[in-house]
Amino acid sequence: MAGNSFGKTFVLSTFGESHGSAIGGIIDGCPAGVEIDINFIQHQLDRRKPGQSKITTQRKESDTVQLLSGIFEGKTTGTPIGFIIQNEDPKSKDYSHIAHSFRPSHADFTYQEKYGHRDYRGGGRSSARETACRVVAGGIALQVLKHWGVSIHSFVQRVHHIEVEQDISTLDFSLIDSNDVRCPDPITAQKMYDFIDQTRKEGDTVGGTIACVIKGAPAAWGEPVFDKLHADLGKAMLSINAAKGFEIGSGFSGTYLKGSEHNDLFELREGKTRTKTNRSGGIQGGISNGEDIHFKVGFKPIATIMHDQQSVNEAGEEVLVKGKGRHDPCVLPRAVPIVDAMAALVMVDHALRSRSNQI
Amino acid sequence: MAGNSFGKTFVLSTFGESHGSAIGGIIDGCPAGVEIDINFIQHQLDRRKPGQSKITTQRKESDTVQLLSGIFEGKTTGTPIGFIIQNEDPKSKDYSHIAHSFRPSHADFTYQEKYGHRDYRGGGRSSARETACRVVAGGIALQVLKHWGVSIHSFVQRVHHIEVEQDISTLDFSLIDSNDVRCPDPITAQKMYDFIDQTRKEGDTVGGTIACVIKGAPAAWGEPVFDKLHADLGKAMLSINAAKGFEIGSGFSGTYLKGSEHNDLFELREGKTRTKTNRSGGIQGGISNGEDIHFKVGFKPIATIMHDQQSVNEAGEEVLVKGKGRHDPCVLPRAVPIVDAMAALVMVDHALRSRSNQI
Amino acid sequence: MAGNSFGKTFVLSTFGESHGSAIGGIIDGCPAGVEIDINFIQHQLDRRKPGQSKITTQRKESDTVQLLSGIFEGKTTGTPIGFIIQNEDPKSKDYSHIAHSFRPSHADFTYQEKYGHRDYRGGGRSSARETACRVVAGGIALQVLKHWGVSIHSFVQRVHHIEVEQDISTLDFSLIDSNDVRCPDPITAQKMYDFIDQTRKEGDTVGGTIACVIKGAPAAWGEPVFDKLHADLGKAMLSINAAKGFEIGSGFSGTYLKGSEHNDLFELREGKTRTKTNRSGGIQGGISNGEDIHFKVGFKPIATIMHDQQSVNEAGEEVLVKGKGRHDPCVLPRAVPIVDAMAALVMVDHALRSRSNQI
Amino acid sequence: MAGNSFGKTFVLSTFGESHGSAIGGIIDGCPAGVEIDINFIQHQLDRRKPGQSKITTQRKESDTVQLLSGIFEGKTTGTPIGFIIQNEDPKSKDYSHIAHSFRPSHADFTYQEKYGHRDYRGGGRSSARETACRVVAGGIALQVLKHWGVSIHSFVQRVHHIEVEQDISTLDFSLIDSNDVRCPDPITAQKMYDFIDQTRKEGDTVGGTIACVIKGAPAAWGEPVFDKLHADLGKAMLSINAAKGFEIGSGFSGTYLKGSEHNDLFELREGKTRTKTNRSGGIQGGISNGEDIHFKVGFKPIATIMHDQQSVNEAGEEVLVKGKGRHDPCVLPRAVPIVDAMAALVMVDHALRSRSNQI
Repeated sequence: MAGNSFGKTFVLSTFGESHGSAIGGIIDGCPAGVEIDINFIQHQLDRRKPGQSKITTQRKESDTVQLLSGIFEGKTTGTPIGFIIQNEDPKSKDYSHIAHSFRPSHADFTYQEKYGHRDYRGGGRSSARETACRVVAGGIALQVLKHWGVSIHSFVQRVHHIEVEQDISTLDFSLIDSNDVRCPDPITAQKMYDFIDQTRKEGDTVGGTIACVIKGAPAAWGEPVFDKLHADLGKAMLSINAAKGFEIGSGFSGTYLKGSEHNDLFELREGKTRTKTNRSGGIQGGISNGEDIHFKVGFKPIATIMHDQQSVNEAGEEVLVKGKGRHDPCVLPRAVPIVDAMAALVMVDHALRSRSNQI
Repeated sequence: MAGNSFGKTFVLSTFGESHGSAIGGIIDGCPAGVEIDINFIQHQLDRRKPGQSKITTQRKESDTVQLLSGIFEGKTTGTPIGFIIQNEDPKSKDYSHIAHSFRPSHADFTYQEKYGHRDYRGGGRSSARETACRVVAGGIALQVLKHWGVSIHSFVQRVHHIEVEQDISTLDFSLIDSNDVRCPDPITAQKMYDFIDQTRKEGDTVGGTIACVIKGAPAAWGEPVFDKLHADLGKAMLSINAAKGFEIGSGFSGTYLKGSEHNDLFELREGKTRTKTNRSGGIQGGISNGEDIHFKVGFKPIATIMHDQQSVNEAGEEVLVKGKGRHDPCVLPRAVPIVDAMAALVMVDHALRSRSNQI
Repeated sequence: MAGNSFGKTFVLSTFGESHGSAIGGIIDGCPAGVEIDINFIQHQLDRRKPGQSKITTQRKESDTVQLLSGIFEGKTTGTPIGFIIQNEDPKSKDYSHIAHSFRPSHADFTYQEKYGHRDYRGGGRSSARETACRVVAGGIALQVLKHWGVSIHSFVQRVHHIEVEQDISTLDFSLIDSNDVRCPDPITAQKMYDFIDQTRKEGDTVGGTIACVIKGAPAAWGEPVFDKLHADLGKAMLSINAAKGFEIGSGFSGTYLKGSEHNDLFELREGKTRTKTNRSGGIQGGISNGEDIHFKVGFKPIATIMHDQQSVNEAGEEVLVKGKGRHDPCVLPRAVPIVDAMAALVMVDHALRSRSNQI
Repeated sequence: MAGNSFGKTFVLSTFGESHGSAIGGIIDGCPAGVEIDINFIQHQLDRRKPGQSKITTQRKESDTVQLLSGIFEGKTTGTPIGFIIQNEDPKSKDYSHIAHSFRPSHADFTYQEKYGHRDYRGGGRSSARETACRVVAGGIALQVLKHWGVSIHSFVQRVHHIEVEQDISTLDFSLIDSNDVRCPDPITAQKMYDFIDQTRKEGDTVGGTIACVIKGAPAAWGEPVFDKLHADLGKAMLSINAAKGFEIGSGFSGTYLKGSEHNDLFELREGKTRTKTNRSGGIQGGISNGEDIHFKVGFKPIATIMHDQQSVNEAGEEVLVKGKGRHDPCVLPRAVPIVDAMAALVMVDHALRSRSNQI
């Protein structure tokens, strides 16, 4: 059983290689009656697309989505939503330097071992290009979530050692897109930008952390014991290219506290049962508790660097892999809409799943 | 769609509340022909059971597993393996202090909101008691994994601020069970023990980190783009009670490196394509690459403390929840076999899934 | 991926061999808040159990169900419902005549080929004994269906050539259990009884047809294009031991009509859109249309006869398989509650699935 | 959870409405290394397309498939295979006669009730147009099946009362496409043709039966207790538009036999365990037994006739629905490749699933 579908009730299936003729997907399980604004979906895609600023790859791809089904007279019909994004013509490109050699810390070697045969052009299926399909589906999921008043706010929280120091509750999320880094703190954003640009000039790459805050989810979503809400969020995030770590709420830092310091006490606030603190990250026992859900995702520096590197080829010979091409010095600014998208897919899936919780 | 099944090919489904008559499960998809040693399963259960040492809860439960089907003449038959563990008689216990109040940072409130009705005895389904079923299934999965020569080694890597400093490659995993903490470094283990015992006396609780090393997996397991091996491992770990974070390979610390520092160069070693370093954690592009798989899981301090805490009850009144009963000061020593189990379930599932990768 | 789970939202998983220590199952996805009467479940089990009349096998099994979880204070909690039925002690029995020979038209040969190893005692997993677990789950599903006012009425419609001639709309379903055959037409029932009893005396077996009518389903259930309601009902029925055919509505006889004869015209009746006829069997385009759902299932004569039969053994030698033991001359009377159960599982599953159809 | 995916290991998901911009699908789980001939896929599509003969609808659609991913240098890569078929421009068509009225025995009413909103153009998602995607996927599945030497032979066995009398074992399947009816008996085919043509002139429609024979499957495929091979075949067939009945092997006619007449005795033939007769239809206990698998599917006369019919509209008024347009007088000739396709999908799925049966 392969792994190109995500979700159990609101299900995204995707296809497509980096340099095939098109990529695309199907959303099955979107309820009927949701108004869909295709411009919003394209806007999310534009936030992900290459070439959007000096600190992203300079490749130019228009990434225009075509919705093929499942929407009629502006609203979803309950039938599957098919979509494609045409790829640019790959024919003129030269892949000879990677066709039969394994780029370090890429998936070339593992795909070759797993399948015995691979589309090496631009990394084929292992390219982060497939995440464009996630962003399309996320653009639909975000519109479905409005039904429950849920909104999602992802941003670059740290680049290498440069970090947003403020508490997330004090940040102004409307500033996320005010800069090319997608960090809502403009002063830190500028430092991050300079650091990324310097790294780019060195032909190197840099990682960091994206934080995400989900507002408006009711106390009810998440399906213990295995499909706990944060477990599904964690899987969603870890499935994104270059993601290496996930933490919910207090995360690893919370493991340095005692129980008496960590517990979120309950209180009545405006007539509702609320927690005084939110170290739980909005989820208790795997179920949302009505507080803001917040988590962080760690992304490694991406593997494509402009330096030559030692490697091995398919023939079992040690070779040098050349550093060349146009690549991102830092994945984080373009990964922000992908985190938005994957979070939205998880949340809609659990919103629908929760409809069976009570008779 | 509820969430009490795990895996897609080797599937564990579980049932049972903390103080119902029994807990149990079904494994569907275990191949026929695997020799099963029930004593090994019971051994793993004994590593998880309460009352096993001074630094675990002093509740006594025998946790004896009964295998009901799917095994004939010592070998699996390919049909589902059903099992149960009888609960001790809960009738004499007193739940009045928690029957209608929400314990801070527990799942009482969220279960009540989600289902409108809950078995409050001992936390019901939200109790970590359900993990005993995972350990049974993991005990079977570990025996299936021998077919591929795969072994799994989880241990307590950090308790609060007390941490194993050595590189994982230098540790002697045969020492994991040489102490009550389940830390393979005896000197650090003693410091951890003392710290947990001190915390216990304070009526408080403490968290930390469990590390896991998986040896022997071939380069082939993992199903991109969504069911990447580390994404499924991450979900598995985050589904364990009190888990708050997961990191694969270099994890969050790797996000402070440049690409040129982080990439794992390929070399030929004993005629095989191997990586010189292993910051990838044995997984590239979501597929195992033949190196050791290693990851860490962060566990918060568990919520049940011996102090009175402010809370709210079902009637919407602010109340004090009493600290009482016999609980674990630190979840980590008993969580080690649970991490083993969940890792084993993921690995067998992907081993079987990979059988369809090539014609 | 094995096949011991049924349903997508309301999911039954079962385990157990005919002569293992117990059989049982888990229902995951039952909504919270449903009142459960265990006596009703046991009543359905009693309708299926052996030894209930002269025309069923004379084996005696009490088939007492134990519900182990998921129900608290008389109502479902939304957590999985685990249950077991203990088997009678099989130790004294003699299986030597079938241990290594393949009974004609049984599953001995195919299990041996598929798994390489099998529990031959009483047919192991291939025995119809596993259907007792379906009846337990169906007994719960039937109680869930009351929420929507849905009721299910299965009965023996034909035994060999002896058939109920009346239109199903004229039958009095309260008479189904008025006789041992479970046929609501007493005169035909007596003829069926005599024919079965005569066949029993000949040491032979006989098949026939069970019809099922489902009342009260709203116009909304069924998930095209693959999970059409009648497709899922068909699969459910064909998964029952000895079932060889399924037809919905007019079925095969409808294929002898012209479109102008077969179409169900719409009319207004009591202010509702209704069909004048019901050749569609209550389902159009795979979705229930608010009319009675009706279908038929054909059951072959069961394979265990009291005659010696030619066969082959595991060693690849031609052998005679002895006819002995106590077996059913006709599966149909005991299959009625199984058809009820499988129909109920499908209907609850689709009722819950339909909750996601509109935002 | 919606229902637009089929299979558990080899999974087809489809999208598309009759008059949207395109229809298409994704196959996930196709093993790498299978040689794919796109001309064969197009050939199967051409067998299904409208306008191919005088006894099919005279609508003209080219139905050209585009494969977008998952195939590289002529072979599958193990990654998802995405495909689309562009629809002809629907803008010029007139749907006013059905936009708000419910055609009798169509899915207009049930879609409206289920989703509250529907794409009425040409029946939208409920149109049999979606089956073109099944045929594409089946065209791939049939090529995968060559790996095991499995071939599939569907043909029209009966139109209304005109039936192939010969035993299926005596038919020459190479003649199936020798006539427009797709019946391997030329004399019967001509009678069927004349009957269909006469029905067409009357503006009426006619149903019948398609038979299918699957050759070459080993004794091992099928996953009891729920996913029995014939149960999955039955569901597959019943999910096809206009299918009303399914029978495996002796089917309903076998229910008129005694056990002593029906059982398939085992014998040794060419050193193998074989059955002397094949009333089981090649499946015992839900698992293929190495004999030919054979089943029948009943199709009702399709609902679109050239007569005016009484109905109801969305406003709840009784109306006349006009008979107009160009439609098929008999679905069977075009349904033959659909039966081939769905059978192939089931068989590949079970072939891959069986790879986990033994360690």
